[in-house]
Amino acid sequence: MSLSEKVLSGDVRAAARLMRDIDDARPSATEELKQLYGRTGNAYIIGITGPPGAGKSTLVDQLTASFRQQGKKVGVVAIDPTSPFTGGAILGDRIRMNRHATDEGVFIRSLATRGALGGLSRSTSDVALVLDAMGMDIIIIETVGVGQDEVDIVKAAHTTCVVMVPGLGDDIQAIKAGILEIGDVFVVNKADREGVDRTARELETMLEMRNAAAGSWSPQVLKVEAQRGAGIEALVDQIRAHRDFLFASGTIDNLLRERNQRHFVDILRDSLYRRVMDFMEQDAVLARVLDGMGAGTLDPYSAAEDVIAGMLKKG
Amino acid sequence: MSLSEKVLSGDVRAAARLMRDIDDARPSATEELKQLYGRTGNAYIIGITGPPGAGKSTLVDQLTASFRQQGKKVGVVAIDPTSPFTGGAILGDRIRMNRHATDEGVFIRSLATRGALGGLSRSTSDVALVLDAMGMDIIIIETVGVGQDEVDIVKAAHTTCVVMVPGLGDDIQAIKAGILEIGDVFVVNKADREGVDRTARELETMLEMRNAAAGSWSPQVLKVEAQRGAGIEALVDQIRAHRDFLFASGTIDNLLRERNQRHFVDILRDSLYRRVMDFMEQDAVLARVLDGMGAGTLDPYSAAEDVIAGMLKKG
Repeated sequence: MSLSEKVLSGDVRAAARLMRDIDDARPSATEELKQLYGRTGNAYIIGITGPPGAGKSTLVDQLTASFRQQGKKVGVVAIDPTSPFTGGAILGDRIRMNRHATDEGVFIRSLATRGALGGLSRSTSDVALVLDAMGMDIIIIETVGVGQDEVDIVKAAHTTCVVMVPGLGDDIQAIKAGILEIGDVFVVNKADREGVDRTARELETMLEMRNAAAGSWSPQVLKVEAQRGAGIEALVDQIRAHRDFLFASGTIDNLLRERNQRHFVDILRDSLYRRVMDFMEQDAVLARVLDGMGAGTLDPYSAAEDVIAGMLKKG
Repeated sequence: MSLSEKVLSGDVRAAARLMRDIDDARPSATEELKQLYGRTGNAYIIGITGPPGAGKSTLVDQLTASFRQQGKKVGVVAIDPTSPFTGGAILGDRIRMNRHATDEGVFIRSLATRGALGGLSRSTSDVALVLDAMGMDIIIIETVGVGQDEVDIVKAAHTTCVVMVPGLGDDIQAIKAGILEIGDVFVVNKADREGVDRTARELETMLEMRNAAAGSWSPQVLKVEAQRGAGIEALVDQIRAHRDFLFASGTIDNLLRERNQRHFVDILRDSLYRRVMDFMEQDAVLARVLDGMGAGTLDPYSAAEDVIAGMLKKG
């Protein structure tokens, strides 16, 4: 049986192995994903994003517990900050959500933000695809931070929850403005803290000030205390309400087409990059370019044009 | 006179125009950069990174003032979080460092983190190149956050300062581990706050625990109160000490070669991506791929292979 057949038959170890192959960018993983692709599209994907320290992992843990109580199978993809030198993820699967460790209806996978050269959103989509093929009903994608990468990643979700907390410092206003447009639900976590009402009110005001198109979704701001589990049911209700809106309004069609486009273009860029790196390995092209740049006789712009022309000529 | 000739002659408006062209990814900008490339390599580049709310902008402001007192010309590239929908940067050049606004020895440029599809580190390098060609002695690159993008960007610097503050929440440990290896100098800002000594001690312990190679640089942890300007001179001294180390140890050669490689590969990926997007615009290739994916008759992996084969065949 091929790896993809094993995944489809519910083999958890085969799924873990395929995800590792995706992480290692093995060509065989692409072949397996081709086989799985036709069997996906059934999972509902929830994105959770927000600044460091917002308590996202605890929230994901509580959401997972809630969906499990409904009998749903839950897959989690957590994007962890990586040490750029060692290549290792800082937070491992193991320190995450121990209480779900023995639950066969939960599959958790950490992805490291290491330098797959822009490949993080591709890896995330690929891993989500495996979870989908495994039969997960819900897939939660958790990302730290506010960068472009994070924005790209949560765009793969059906419903995106932006998690904030009171009192994270001066630049928070800027970040809020940046993520205001990507959130379908806003969560102010650590609702026992001082300033929570002000943070929630500020968010509500900012949301009201947006020029939302008529008939578009109106995001709510929910106060949650993830640590105690308070407010989780209201959050689940909002996620469900947003899902119902997507289908009732027909917005889902656009969302899926845009998601497909991003995934396809990610794969295309990644494949092209690998192709050109392979091309440059022959004849030590890269070393010659770097020698020329170091000597000041070659600029990188002309060098890139020459390399591309060479690759296209070779066919 | 061409734009690049004007930049070399010190024309500030021409430099601003070229940077806009870089931001807009105009092909003409690449031609100008080719002309400038041979006249660069003289500026010393300092990277400033750290989490939101760490007071990086204030620190950059103080560093700028200090270098100006030494008579050095200073260029600043500030990477600002962007609203992914509007495309506009949140923090503009205008709200930054008003006190240097009339100083001709200071040139400040904000770059938005909008979706140039992985092109942010390329744009940053290109803009730094223009500042270098303009004759700036010091270039400061400021980035928010801890993502892979930020790491890539500060790798363009000769000396990287990581800015921390006490009490930014639970995930900070993870972030510290992630950026521990990219910092040449560590700054604990807001040194008037409670917990500053503990944060500094924690950082020092983590730095000591690293298995640093013999003869390598030992980063110091400095306490700074950027708002009052306290500790800035010690920081400038540390940056100078690190620069001296780079040249005395010969580490500078490797650093420059690695920087050249990253810049070249960034340009190469970017150019390839534009090429394939142009190719797909003919014959509505993208629309057909998305139709196939939507209908479930085409997977994105096979589609990417087909498109690349088509492009290479066409030459």
